[in-house]
This record gives sequence, structure tokens and C-alpha cells, in this order.
Amino acid sequence: MTRILGIDPGSQRTGIGVIDMAADGRCTFVHAQALVLLDAADFPSRLGLLCEGLEALLEQWQPQQIAIETVFMDKSAMSALKLGHARGAALATVVRRRLPVSEYEPRVIKQSLVGRGAADKVQVQHMVRLLLNLLPDAKLQADAADALAVALTHAHMSATATRTGLTTDQLRRRR
Amino acid sequence: MTRILGIDPGSQRTGIGVIDMAADGRCTFVHAQALVLLDAADFPSRLGLLCEGLEALLEQWQPQQIAIETVFMDKSAMSALKLGHARGAALATVVRRRLPVSEYEPRVIKQSLVGRGAADKVQVQHMVRLLLNLLPDAKLQADAADALAVALTHAHMSATATRTGLTTDQLRRRR
Repeated sequence: MTRILGIDPGSQRTGIGVIDMAADGRCTFVHAQALVLLDAADFPSRLGLLCEGLEALLEQWQPQQIAIETVFMDKSAMSALKLGHARGAALATVVRRRLPVSEYEPRVIKQSLVGRGAADKVQVQHMVRLLLNLLPDAKLQADAADALAVALTHAHMSATATRTGLTTDQLRRRR
Repeated sequence: MTRILGIDPGSQRTGIGVIDMAADGRCTFVHAQALVLLDAADFPSRLGLLCEGLEALLEQWQPQQIAIETVFMDKSAMSALKLGHARGAALATVVRRRLPVSEYEPRVIKQSLVGRGAADKVQVQHMVRLLLNLLPDAKLQADAADALAVALTHAHMSATATRTGLTTDQLRRRR
């Protein structure tokens, strides 16, 4: 059993999703939540909240592997920059615990879950619910769902890597 | 006496400069160095190195105030994004120690040290040496000099704030 923690970084809300991957590649839901950073006094304090919240969850759930979304560069320069700050703070927190981190582009996550890189958010969330056997009426915050999606992508990549003998890095490049 | 630590964030090299500001506003040199992050295995590890290096220096020099450069948005989107990651990691490290952070635009730093916002790097470094009474042949790495420059800017702003009764935030906006 491998525990994977997925991160969908954002400077307003950062999604966290935790799943367990069995030896046969099947995944079960463990935890999902959004760290809401909007109440902080200023931007630096938001990053502080992000790190503290993430560290508390790493401590609580003790994941062995981390998966994180890359920044979608199509956004405005300013929003990409803010997102970069949030991602930097999250990555630093994870790396300092010596946890292995895998990064996945939004396109790869969609491809892995829905089967095509241009899928919309609703389809991705639908597949997250389906793959994790969540009840249709179970509430799932959007950023938390995205975090579960990146965790599931990493699980699929790892399972395929084990089957094919390729590394997840090689698989990511083949997409 | 107030100890100020300045940060010039970068994902390849992050400059750190420490100065002491006396009650009359005069500053003395304490320490300057560049954290070299290029040897790290990958980008996340660089951010980890940055945080560890910064934390060691915060522990060693025990500054009361932090000053950091903002990101110059004229750079390419990709380099601004990488810089954002480094800044985010540095800010999170500082904020978690509950240290007050002030942010200064490159233009404001140049204006404060040289007297005009369009000054070049050589002029800024010259003024850093002059203001801190460094020997002409004392070696000063470029990023470390930039970090001293932002620390000096914060010292000048604080001294002016004390004299005028304005906050450093109000002064920054008046520039």
C-alpha cells in the first residue's frame, strides 16, 4: 500500500487530496480538503498559512509520495507569478521532509483520468468520484477534487511504470 | 539597534545581506553571501536548499526585520515564474518565524540608494559599498550586494518613517 498526497497549489485556496494505492494499482479515498488562505492579513502570510496547513496534513496522513500540478502558463503573468509563489512554498515544505515529488501538467492529468488532454473540469471531477467510489451526493470542494486528480494520475503512472519497467518520468514524456 | 536581513531571491542563486541600523539611521555591515542552489538534483530540491540555507542564516544572525525584492515583471513569463517559486519559498520560511517582511520594487531600491529609479547595477553596488564603508577591494558577490541594497532601502525607509510619522508602506507609495 502506498499513500499519495496530491497538491493543487493556489494562493487563495490550495487543494489537498490523499489516497491509498494498493499493489494492484487500485486507489481508495483517504482525505480531501482545501486550505483556505484568503483570511491571511497579506500575501506573505498566506504562504505561511499554506506551509503550516500542509505540514499539519503531512504529519497527520504520513504520505510516502507527493504529486503536484505544474503551473498552467496560459494564465496572465501576474496570476502565474502568484501561483508560482504558492507552488514554491508548497514544494519547499515537501522537499524539506525528504518526500519524493512528481510534477504533472494539467494536460497529462486530464489525459490520464478522462482519456483526452482537453477534458473539462466537470469530467475530471466525475472521474475522480468514480475512481474513488465516492457517493454521488458526497460534497467535494473543487480544489480538493483537483488535488485528488493529480494524486490519482501519479498512482496510474506508478502502476504503469511497475508494469512496463519505465520510470514515471519516461511515461510523462511519452504522453 | 535593529538588525535587518535583506533577500534577493533567485532560483539559481539567492542573495542574503545582513546589516545593523543604529537609532540615528546609520547602517553597518554584518554579513553577506549568496546561497548557490545550482548543485541541487532538481528544481524542488533547489527550493529546499534555499529554505534550509535561509533558516540557518536566520538562526545565526537573528534579524528583527526582513526586506525582500519584488519580482521584476519585465522578465519572460517562465523566468518570472521560477523567480516566484524562489520568492514564495523564502517568504514562507520568514513568515513562519513570525518576522515582519517588507517588500520593495527594484525601482524603489534604486531610487532610495542612487537617487533615480533607472540607475544601473554598478551604481547600486557602488552605493552599497559606500554606505556600508566596505573596502574598495572587498569582494562582494552580485546577488549578495543586491540583498544588502534591499536591506539598506528598508533601513532608509524606516528612518524616514520615524522622522516623518508616516509608515514605510505610505512612503513606498509616495515614491
